[in-house]
Amino acid sequence: MSKTLIFGHKNPDTDTICSAIAYADLKTQLGAHVEAVRLGEMNGETTFALNYFQVEAPRPIDKVASHTNEVILVDHNEQQQSADDISDVVVTEVIDHHRIANFETAGPIYCRIEPVGCTATIIKKIYEENQLTIPKEIAGLMLSAIISDSLLFKSPTCTEQDVQAARELATIAGVDADSYGLDMLKAGADVSTKSVQQLLTLDAKIFTMGDFKTEIAQVNTVDPNDVLSRQMELEDEINKLITAKHLDLFVFVITDILENDSVALVLGKQTAAFEQAFEEKLTNHTARLQGVVSRKKQVVPPLTNVLSQM
Amino acid sequence: MSKTLIFGHKNPDTDTICSAIAYADLKTQLGAHVEAVRLGEMNGETTFALNYFQVEAPRPIDKVASHTNEVILVDHNEQQQSADDISDVVVTEVIDHHRIANFETAGPIYCRIEPVGCTATIIKKIYEENQLTIPKEIAGLMLSAIISDSLLFKSPTCTEQDVQAARELATIAGVDADSYGLDMLKAGADVSTKSVQQLLTLDAKIFTMGDFKTEIAQVNTVDPNDVLSRQMELEDEINKLITAKHLDLFVFVITDILENDSVALVLGKQTAAFEQAFEEKLTNHTARLQGVVSRKKQVVPPLTNVLSQM
Repeated sequence: MSKTLIFGHKNPDTDTICSAIAYADLKTQLGAHVEAVRLGEMNGETTFALNYFQVEAPRPIDKVASHTNEVILVDHNEQQQSADDISDVVVTEVIDHHRIANFETAGPIYCRIEPVGCTATIIKKIYEENQLTIPKEIAGLMLSAIISDSLLFKSPTCTEQDVQAARELATIAGVDADSYGLDMLKAGADVSTKSVQQLLTLDAKIFTMGDFKTEIAQVNTVDPNDVLSRQMELEDEINKLITAKHLDLFVFVITDILENDSVALVLGKQTAAFEQAFEEKLTNHTARLQGVVSRKKQVVPPLTNVLSQM
Repeated sequence: MSKTLIFGHKNPDTDTICSAIAYADLKTQLGAHVEAVRLGEMNGETTFALNYFQVEAPRPIDKVASHTNEVILVDHNEQQQSADDISDVVVTEVIDHHRIANFETAGPIYCRIEPVGCTATIIKKIYEENQLTIPKEIAGLMLSAIISDSLLFKSPTCTEQDVQAARELATIAGVDADSYGLDMLKAGADVSTKSVQQLLTLDAKIFTMGDFKTEIAQVNTVDPNDVLSRQMELEDEINKLITAKHLDLFVFVITDILENDSVALVLGKQTAAFEQAFEEKLTNHTARLQGVVSRKKQVVPPLTNVLSQM
């Protein structure tokens, strides 16, 4: 029997990678034959976390159907964020904390989606419900996932459950959440070594909103100007992506992890929808979004609302 | 602030009604402002259960948006099985045990779908996770839901978790599951007093399978011949439904609750898909389906597989 593969979304972030590893540990403890894998390159933040807790990176794979018949999705459910050939395999479980869309199954599955800040917070509950022990290094990775998704507990997506879970995981992992967390976020926020292509693809997701296709990329920085100094180059590349992927809108969210707000660089046919959604006029294709740090909670819903009604 | 409404699918069955009542009790215990309601008439089995445990029936409603902005779905997630104006309100939670399809949210929600035999089994877990007490009469209704969905634990959808939950609920409710359960099932299986229209609509669901629209109605009997004696009248009515609803296929599953198998009466343009899915030739539009009692596990998946590939 082939192994059930467990993976998160394309352009993997720290929650996607660490939740796949943690859930593979959990399922293995329950006697299942599983392997955590990843769809794409890891970012600097995730690499920092894996190195710190000395855990091996999951194997990268491209397509899944040649490896297995059954998969478990963590940290995503939308088909276009998953493996290209996801419709050729059976999804047996979903553990996620995002909106539900473009997802369909032939039969009933185990689907655990909760409105918390991080998939790892849900996985911690499932460890407890099954009375399993969380290994020290796995606790460190789950803590890293919560810190990453919550920007050290400052994102509006962060719930009391995430904070409580992180506190307990930090104790198991034997680290100080704040000092470890800031080091990890800074490791991911070093934009100087990244190409324009990397900035736009490392954490990018495509969403179907009404009849429109929107891509939203996000990058964390300690100063958005480090990224905006390359605005012309960025716009050239974004316009290429719009053409190649037939996008109606591209929103590049440049988040300041120290100030906890963002600058958006917005291109495409539907920029007026962006202006309507955020009640902000674009100046030279950019707008400052005060207090906005969460794509999921602060960018996707207002854009979806406007574009679904057009 | 208006109450959050909690309801199951159209053509409500015992699990849909009893799970709505139970989840409303659970949420009320947690301090939420909720009300269980129902989309349509209750069947004889559900009425028997409510009378037995002396619980008032949920209020019937037609559309939801005039009553509330927020709803919780139990025992279903597919849009076409829900309130007609479901897209005008916000779904905040889903507790279900069916396949996921035609369901989309703008933001993350609490979604608890598990491959068990009954929604009430999942709700029992949530009571326990929140350390709440299940009132005696609510336990009786949850037990009724499990007995109904599992045909007294004989359906292939019934899991060890359902059996265990039912055992504990019977103790709380103070009834013998087997003798109470058979009385309840028989109360629902009395077809003599039902019109042909009622037989075809009391437990009917529409499914989108590939490019095709299939309606599957089911009725429990102690002898399928009690229903088939009205075959001509049934066919006339089914053909009217096919025309009115633009259906590609109508499958009427007449289940023998004593023998635990079914006879299917099948009409529509795609009857060949039915024959392919079940490897059974139709004779006079009917086929005996040995051991088939579960629409969800034994009828929907093979039909979906065949029709999705056409």
